[in-house]
Amino acid sequence: MQRIAVLGAGAWGTTYAKVLADAGRDVVLWARKPELAETIGREHVNPDRLPDVRLPDNLTSTSDASAALADAEAVVLAVPSQHLRENLAKWAPLLPAGVTLVSLAKGVELHTLKRMSEVITEVAGVPEHQVAVVSGPNLAREIADRQPTATVIACTDHERAVELQHASTTGYFRPYTNTDLVGCELGGACKNVIALSCGIAVGMGLGANTVATLITRGLAETTRLGAQLGAHPLTFSGLAGLGDLVATCSSSLSRNRTFGELLGKGKSIAEAQEAAHGQVAEGVKSCSSIRDLAVRHGVEMPITEVVHRICHDGGDPRELGADLIGRKTKPER
Amino acid sequence: MQRIAVLGAGAWGTTYAKVLADAGRDVVLWARKPELAETIGREHVNPDRLPDVRLPDNLTSTSDASAALADAEAVVLAVPSQHLRENLAKWAPLLPAGVTLVSLAKGVELHTLKRMSEVITEVAGVPEHQVAVVSGPNLAREIADRQPTATVIACTDHERAVELQHASTTGYFRPYTNTDLVGCELGGACKNVIALSCGIAVGMGLGANTVATLITRGLAETTRLGAQLGAHPLTFSGLAGLGDLVATCSSSLSRNRTFGELLGKGKSIAEAQEAAHGQVAEGVKSCSSIRDLAVRHGVEMPITEVVHRICHDGGDPRELGADLIGRKTKPER
Repeated sequence: MQRIAVLGAGAWGTTYAKVLADAGRDVVLWARKPELAETIGREHVNPDRLPDVRLPDNLTSTSDASAALADAEAVVLAVPSQHLRENLAKWAPLLPAGVTLVSLAKGVELHTLKRMSEVITEVAGVPEHQVAVVSGPNLAREIADRQPTATVIACTDHERAVELQHASTTGYFRPYTNTDLVGCELGGACKNVIALSCGIAVGMGLGANTVATLITRGLAETTRLGAQLGAHPLTFSGLAGLGDLVATCSSSLSRNRTFGELLGKGKSIAEAQEAAHGQVAEGVKSCSSIRDLAVRHGVEMPITEVVHRICHDGGDPRELGADLIGRKTKPER
Repeated sequence: MQRIAVLGAGAWGTTYAKVLADAGRDVVLWARKPELAETIGREHVNPDRLPDVRLPDNLTSTSDASAALADAEAVVLAVPSQHLRENLAKWAPLLPAGVTLVSLAKGVELHTLKRMSEVITEVAGVPEHQVAVVSGPNLAREIADRQPTATVIACTDHERAVELQHASTTGYFRPYTNTDLVGCELGGACKNVIALSCGIAVGMGLGANTVATLITRGLAETTRLGAQLGAHPLTFSGLAGLGDLVATCSSSLSRNRTFGELLGKGKSIAEAQEAAHGQVAEGVKSCSSIRDLAVRHGVEMPITEVVHRICHDGGDPRELGADLIGRKTKPER
């Protein structure tokens, strides 16, 4: 894998493109807006997302998807999860045969309740073993600053995972491989909902004990869902489960955590969205699709259920604390 | 269990005594210093540790251990782990027969490499099923403020754990029971060492990705040690493993985390101790005994090893980042 296209110039797409370029690959970063692609190409910087980070010379940019995709040996999909289907539908005819498709999106599609790799195999018409997922404790800003970071590259085809691992290993970025695609995807999707719950707790003035309890019980309910969907339980104890969850729940760099804090302080979804420059946190959407998935498979996910009630049913955040503590005493498992 | 003695008036001993009193028990808190016991009895406050927290009227205090222990149905041991043996040796002749002994101390004894429950059975001459452990995401300060908190009460005698659970359940404090004494004790001991490593990373200017990676890999090495010593692996995914670890590693209220930050900023152990008002963090001692335990049982604990080198062999904290990232790429497990 020498020539790699990264489709989507958000913070994580841009940062992962930089990692690949730092690892010596020839990277083309596709940006939707032509003026952004031009600026990145000319000034080696993404002013919208990482204004103070210099991008390597072997990272070029275009807003022409067919130019980005020509001869690509791997294609990294870095668009938001609820927009992946519509974007990929346009790109599918341009994909080189046999190419590795790498998903950076974290979520479960609303209504279809499909994981991102399922959306990809369906829309691109490729077998599952051509799809890989990158997931771990990966706050983009810190990686862009070359802080030591580990991640997981998951693919049911181990050899393909190893190829991508080699293509993205640098002195500051260390990928581990894993064949549990389902577990890594669910870890990445569910963590946004748990991070929202932690943010809500912090916004209500609660401290580290409550946040740690939400993380622990949140990982337990994620693991229950994963086990039901065929994931390996140990994946959730690893970097794409626990690692990603802890990073997302504990950092003020996490949009989900920050959005939750606004809700915990009593703001409505609309007010929080306004304060977040018009963006709704990923977990606000995912809590509905993950909850539906849990209901469909008969899995209890009490934290996800409460977050859903707060975000979509006018529920009172104070329920959250009561729900954690108020139940009957019992054995831990 | 109506009459309970709590031996040790540090922050956690005082706070757990308050929980028991809030749960309606008659609690006697033993303080080493007579003047402290008098103040607590007269003013219902512990000026040394929790100056702004009002203690309930059904919590009395004494510096006379025999008065505290007379007719006690449960005895809570709340002295630092490396001082438990010498203290308990004095108290052992005063213990009522059949009493439940509850350990709040977190650590592995230097040289003997014994867990606290092993020290207790040995020194008090009681069978293991009389010993219980309280462990979880339990920063004392937050519990004293009545923030919603969950914990684990571990005892190989399930009925005894349930009795203690009932004796310490309040509107803000929710204990779960567990029969895995070994796992809960190791989770509590090892977390202090991992918290030191997280503090060191933060002191070096590293962010949430690195901290989350240390937590994830730290829990993995703790679980490996536990499995070797007969603990149940799932205990480490619960509140006494992951929960306690995350609370300790992410809060500025944690002495181990704060002490590590000083080391990460380049201070020596002696300088850090001075800055911490003369106290050495628990993990500085535990890292040696836990490392020795790992060596004895042939378990790899790379993070504990690095912390030990930094604390006791003049190792450079910058090793830590390199050690996490620098190794050969490989599968996650």
